[in-house]
Amino acid sequence: MKQSDLFFKTYKKISEEEEAKNSQFLIRAGFIEKVGAGIYNFLPLGLIVIEKIKKIIREELNRISCQEVLLANLHPQEFWQKSGRLKKFDVLFTVRGQRDNQYVLAPTHEEIIFPLVKKNINSYKDLPVALYQINTKYRDELRAKSGLLRNREFIMKDLYSFHTDEKDLERFKKLMDKTYLKIFKRCGLKAIPTLASGGTFSEFSTEFQVITEAGEDIIYHCPNCKYAFNKEIIDEKNNKCQKCFNNLIENKSIEVGNTFNLGTKFSEIFDVFYLDKNNQKKYIWAGCYGIGITRLLGAIVEVNSDEKGIIWPKEVSPFLVHLIKLNYSDSKINKKLRLIADRVYLTLKNNNIEVLFDDRENVSNGQKFIESDLIGLPYQIIVGEHSHSENLEIRSRLIKKIHKLKLNNLIKWFNSLNN
Amino acid sequence: MKQSDLFFKTYKKISEEEEAKNSQFLIRAGFIEKVGAGIYNFLPLGLIVIEKIKKIIREELNRISCQEVLLANLHPQEFWQKSGRLKKFDVLFTVRGQRDNQYVLAPTHEEIIFPLVKKNINSYKDLPVALYQINTKYRDELRAKSGLLRNREFIMKDLYSFHTDEKDLERFKKLMDKTYLKIFKRCGLKAIPTLASGGTFSEFSTEFQVITEAGEDIIYHCPNCKYAFNKEIIDEKNNKCQKCFNNLIENKSIEVGNTFNLGTKFSEIFDVFYLDKNNQKKYIWAGCYGIGITRLLGAIVEVNSDEKGIIWPKEVSPFLVHLIKLNYSDSKINKKLRLIADRVYLTLKNNNIEVLFDDRENVSNGQKFIESDLIGLPYQIIVGEHSHSENLEIRSRLIKKIHKLKLNNLIKWFNSLNN
Repeated sequence: MKQSDLFFKTYKKISEEEEAKNSQFLIRAGFIEKVGAGIYNFLPLGLIVIEKIKKIIREELNRISCQEVLLANLHPQEFWQKSGRLKKFDVLFTVRGQRDNQYVLAPTHEEIIFPLVKKNINSYKDLPVALYQINTKYRDELRAKSGLLRNREFIMKDLYSFHTDEKDLERFKKLMDKTYLKIFKRCGLKAIPTLASGGTFSEFSTEFQVITEAGEDIIYHCPNCKYAFNKEIIDEKNNKCQKCFNNLIENKSIEVGNTFNLGTKFSEIFDVFYLDKNNQKKYIWAGCYGIGITRLLGAIVEVNSDEKGIIWPKEVSPFLVHLIKLNYSDSKINKKLRLIADRVYLTLKNNNIEVLFDDRENVSNGQKFIESDLIGLPYQIIVGEHSHSENLEIRSRLIKKIHKLKLNNLIKWFNSLNN
Repeated sequence: MKQSDLFFKTYKKISEEEEAKNSQFLIRAGFIEKVGAGIYNFLPLGLIVIEKIKKIIREELNRISCQEVLLANLHPQEFWQKSGRLKKFDVLFTVRGQRDNQYVLAPTHEEIIFPLVKKNINSYKDLPVALYQINTKYRDELRAKSGLLRNREFIMKDLYSFHTDEKDLERFKKLMDKTYLKIFKRCGLKAIPTLASGGTFSEFSTEFQVITEAGEDIIYHCPNCKYAFNKEIIDEKNNKCQKCFNNLIENKSIEVGNTFNLGTKFSEIFDVFYLDKNNQKKYIWAGCYGIGITRLLGAIVEVNSDEKGIIWPKEVSPFLVHLIKLNYSDSKINKKLRLIADRVYLTLKNNNIEVLFDDRENVSNGQKFIESDLIGLPYQIIVGEHSHSENLEIRSRLIKKIHKLKLNNLIKWFNSLNN
């Protein structure tokens, strides 16, 4: 895409009210815009990243036979009365219409999916089944000051799995844990499975925690046996691993995903059962599994950035290459460089290498570099005076090295990166 | 996909409370599930169709350089106070949090996008720009009894275009009218651009109306000069075309899309201006353009169905082919047919022909045919006793003819359909 056509604007500085590094950079680089506390708009660059994260999640979930659905966000209140969470869920938003009609605005979807599964599942032969959706969720977070890490409106992948018994549920939960680690890795994050409390869902849960100073959680983890737990589930400070007695490490961290063993709790509430081989009614065992997609985006930026701006992991970067044509007062040089830059742009596009082309003629070279480092695509190709002899300069904060290449060798070079 | 793995269930009959043909069929065929009045869940089959419609819309809009964004649905009330629509918009949902915070739950997004554009646009050089999103919208419709045609929660594509003057806006609006007709055609619908009232948006609008008895609108249209208008904008019955004096036709119809010339109304309210060539402040001209995606899905089913069920237009069908393996009591025959069906399935998949494979062994052949006609994929391939000699039977309600083919010729036959 040509940058002169892109709807975006960068900012040198924005209000310090926006405390978090992730939203500071994302707003300054033109990826998101703030609407109110914990509420953001996603601009073209930001939405491309969201879509890339969604693609990774879909690929990995479909690979293990999960099926995608889309569940309603306006929940008739009786569903929440029935589950007993209308008063218990402390971040609930309520929706009022023009008459006496009232709804819960979805913070999670157990109250909707269990009645749905009740209608669709009859026999043990219909199980297991795993359904997920990618949808907006709403939670009235008191403290919404961490940029994309804790929002009132956010995008989430939530998955619900249904099983004949706990053994099959645990089998699937292990598969899901592996899948989560793959997803986070593809997003450029190292996540640590961590034992935590289960809130209104279950007694315990597994949280996937990413270590960063921006995190609101504190975890203890063992470098030896990898056992990890959230500080919230213990009363006092723990120094030793309870599994291998190694010294534990304490870190701040962000929870980017979680998995819950719901047991038969919601199945009992909503009377969701199957008939076993002997035609006996049995409650269905269920698990639920969340990934906060907008929070993940925030975490990616917290972890993958330096003082200049974001450094996108390749698979979620809005484009792989930032092609930057420098501007010169000498119009002859300028014209020649534009021709070269145009050729590079077409060559990349024709070879399916995603490229953002800073073709703007009215922006200084200094500004171009500052903006490009702020936006943070994995590779910069600079077309400047050095390019007279058709030499291109490739810079990358990922590899911290400058490469010089001829156009002829460009595609070969990019292809070699994948091997 | 194998049908034995698909999360779905069909119904011979459902409650007659569900009056509309579109939701009757979509619920019975396992595409959607009702949560409450005007609120539905989308099951795997239904979501595939939604995603296909979204793909068509994105392709056509990106082709004319529109850029996709994602706007917040929780709107701080002051935005709506400022626009004066807090009291005027008669289907508004209000959201209350745990404290005194209150929001409008988005029924439309002018109140959000105009302040966004104000921040990003400075000069005439930044114009025109066209931004769209595909997002859920919420309207407290009093009468929500038409299945997917009038929902309280629905998916919409809304696009907003911004211009230096009315002439450029009108140029773009014409381009958008053409694009809309292309989109609806690809979705299997013939839409009629119709002059209508503009509601709280503008004086007049162009509605894209699809003729069907299920429609809640009444339009008059001229078979000669194609002039058409909504009954709502005239006081008395009109028999003659006011352009060419031909006799008008009256029809019930569904509005599947609309376009509004917003003029400078919202730009004045939100102080959205640009600097022209002489550095003078000028208000930006704007248009807005909607397509109700879930409503479109409803309209497709209303128009493309018969007494047996849905007949999907090819481009939005969840799969192109329904491969049906018939079941026989003779286990030898059964086994042989299963091998043939498996081969057909793999052959289709390997050639990127989307196929739903009814591989279920515990369902009667009669039931398979009834369900398949209800689901309504464009082509059925029947593997039954006639297939001993590897003859396949291809049926289609689109072409109302039975073809007999060998497996060898199958892919050639499907490829020839596209020519």
